[in-house]
Amino acid sequence: MIEPAVLKGFRDSLPEEEIPKKRIIRILEDVFSSYGFVPIDTPVLEYTEVLLGKGGGETDKQIFRFQDNGGRQVAMRFDLTVPFARFLAMHHDKLGVPFKRYHINKVWRGENPQKGRYREFIQCDFDIVGADNAEADYEILSMMHRSFSALRIDGYTFHLSHRALFSAFLAHIGIEDKSIDILRTVDKMRKIGTDEVRKLLDEITGDSSKTEGILSFITAGDGRDFIGTLEAIEKLSGGPSEHSERMRTIYSMLEKTGIASSFVFDPSITRGLDYYTGIVYETFLDKLPSLGSVCSGGRYNDLASLYTKEKLPGVGSSIGLDRLMAGLVELGSPLLADSSAADVLIIHNADDTEKAVIAGEILRGMGIRTDIYLLPEAKMKRIYGYAEARHIPYSLQIKDGSYVLKNLGTREETSFDDLSQIREVIRID
Amino acid sequence: MIEPAVLKGFRDSLPEEEIPKKRIIRILEDVFSSYGFVPIDTPVLEYTEVLLGKGGGETDKQIFRFQDNGGRQVAMRFDLTVPFARFLAMHHDKLGVPFKRYHINKVWRGENPQKGRYREFIQCDFDIVGADNAEADYEILSMMHRSFSALRIDGYTFHLSHRALFSAFLAHIGIEDKSIDILRTVDKMRKIGTDEVRKLLDEITGDSSKTEGILSFITAGDGRDFIGTLEAIEKLSGGPSEHSERMRTIYSMLEKTGIASSFVFDPSITRGLDYYTGIVYETFLDKLPSLGSVCSGGRYNDLASLYTKEKLPGVGSSIGLDRLMAGLVELGSPLLADSSAADVLIIHNADDTEKAVIAGEILRGMGIRTDIYLLPEAKMKRIYGYAEARHIPYSLQIKDGSYVLKNLGTREETSFDDLSQIREVIRID
Repeated sequence: MIEPAVLKGFRDSLPEEEIPKKRIIRILEDVFSSYGFVPIDTPVLEYTEVLLGKGGGETDKQIFRFQDNGGRQVAMRFDLTVPFARFLAMHHDKLGVPFKRYHINKVWRGENPQKGRYREFIQCDFDIVGADNAEADYEILSMMHRSFSALRIDGYTFHLSHRALFSAFLAHIGIEDKSIDILRTVDKMRKIGTDEVRKLLDEITGDSSKTEGILSFITAGDGRDFIGTLEAIEKLSGGPSEHSERMRTIYSMLEKTGIASSFVFDPSITRGLDYYTGIVYETFLDKLPSLGSVCSGGRYNDLASLYTKEKLPGVGSSIGLDRLMAGLVELGSPLLADSSAADVLIIHNADDTEKAVIAGEILRGMGIRTDIYLLPEAKMKRIYGYAEARHIPYSLQIKDGSYVLKNLGTREETSFDDLSQIREVIRID
Repeated sequence: MIEPAVLKGFRDSLPEEEIPKKRIIRILEDVFSSYGFVPIDTPVLEYTEVLLGKGGGETDKQIFRFQDNGGRQVAMRFDLTVPFARFLAMHHDKLGVPFKRYHINKVWRGENPQKGRYREFIQCDFDIVGADNAEADYEILSMMHRSFSALRIDGYTFHLSHRALFSAFLAHIGIEDKSIDILRTVDKMRKIGTDEVRKLLDEITGDSSKTEGILSFITAGDGRDFIGTLEAIEKLSGGPSEHSERMRTIYSMLEKTGIASSFVFDPSITRGLDYYTGIVYETFLDKLPSLGSVCSGGRYNDLASLYTKEKLPGVGSSIGLDRLMAGLVELGSPLLADSSAADVLIIHNADDTEKAVIAGEILRGMGIRTDIYLLPEAKMKRIYGYAEARHIPYSLQIKDGSYVLKNLGTREETSFDDLSQIREVIRID
């Protein structure tokens, strides 16, 4: 006998989790489709060189990689961004730009599993490629807002900033050469706090006045006063620029479409990754700030440059579906509450098997999700336990040639001779 | 620069393919849910030993396997059946039986890619565990029928047989010890033809009269006469038995629910795999017999025995989604025809950007999938090319403060001052 076990950092998804996960994915897909975004998929396995470039770095150690039977160096994708860049390089001619796509699927990282972090998890990316303007930036923000609204999440705030404004500020105070290290350090603010960030910045800048400068930049303004904060940042970064103008235009669109109140200007948002060049954002659940960002992204101007000479500017965002679900569980989201496997459970004696089977087909034809309890000899207690475990709200018992519908919550019973009457009694969303 | 390429046997899924694939998956999920089946998922990576058992055999060579950074022997799943057996061994206590689940996801096999066969493909499995009776067998057949009907496939036939009747026949003629080899050989019938099968059977049985016996068994009866064929098989296998009775009961249910005409008794269906013990089936598209079976399965009585002492009898089926899609493409299925990215494309000048963005939000709120063309400076020819490539049926141009809706097929135009009027003109399914 072999010990049944899953690998460390991996897990099964049982129906209780998988039902709401599928529901959430459908809601997101419907939102994305409502903007004309189209789905794509890419292989789980890619050439290692395609995923890692010429290599090195953090990612390198965390990746699942091996040599396949044909002697190729292959690896499992660790995000959906790099495969998308490779995909664009190969297909942009055929697809044409602007290209608006979404991609919801699993990625793998060999990092050490922590609470709520796994080696296999689902990402949900949506990007617009081939349009570098405020309208495209706005569209992604609008989709984020509509997604969170469609998921009926109780309280969320989108934190916006602009990478180029931060870079302009660093140039303004003469430390643009250290920007990558500074960005990565500031990005850790929420995790490690101001004191620790100050210490790390001191090491990088070697100048406590510059450190204090950076700290006052990232805490400038009151984010709720979007334009006020933008003006403060504008000053610190050397005055008005196309970048600060872009932010103004985006904010105006958010106002005109009535969703501005969910957005704050938060100069502490930098995103650790090198490739961002414009607007950047993170999303926090108001009641669960410690969960971290559940939806992040920004503008990048040259994502596919590793694979093609074609300039392909883009803007996009990524929802961390597993983290978001963990948040929804904690918030007691109604989306997770209904994981009923069926609307009705048909219960019958062995003699009535054919009647039960026919009733099942009729109910399904009426749009009622109908499970049949398949062990007619079982005790009623076991059958009701089955219904309860599956959150099935009604049972339909076949008894002496007629049907008894029972609301398993209220225990109310109604008898029928004719199944067509069931629709008048049953309540299903 | 790195050459952008995908691995041999792998492929990207572009929107043209991914849109209908997602539509098909949703239809199947809705059918499965209508029977009270619940979704599960399992990790892509498992311990190699869990997937392969103590090893050896065909599968062993075809699997993607490696040693992870923690020194574990791991492998990518090559089907959804083995992970389900492992899943059941771990969770059946919590889940309770009968347990009805579906699982739609990718699997990987390193076999040499042929036409229409890839190293990464999607399987779609649905099984009932914990009920060994005709009702459970019927339920899977009913789901298969309802799935194919929901997919609006033009012509399909389910070929049924019974493994235990075949085994009884082999015992009856005294060659049950060679049954595994015989099953595998008969299973190749459609691929290699009668003559080749006869030759192989002769090698196995060493007795041409036994070979002819087997050949007359698998061609017995006229499958369209289900009961007639069953009676012929019953005789050849030594007379009535619980197995032939089971088939009779199943067929009676198919008749009572009005779907019997899609099912034939076909004794040549054996399924190569060892673990089947009862009813077995394959599904062929009437117009594309050479495509092979697009939905196959059967009853197994002890799937999880490698991992648990618990007896877990089951019955299930698996749709080969990629093969089915290839078939639908060849048949010109209407399901694949509509891959429109949006219902309406908004076209605007740079001056009208805010109006366009607002119009987009209003249309989406009305349930109209609305794409906005994001490069206002582009030439009309390019914009219409974009709409055409994405199969978008309408454009909405913002012009002098009013809106012009254009049917891009008929070129008919309608003007509005108020967007609420759009619903009266536009036709969307």
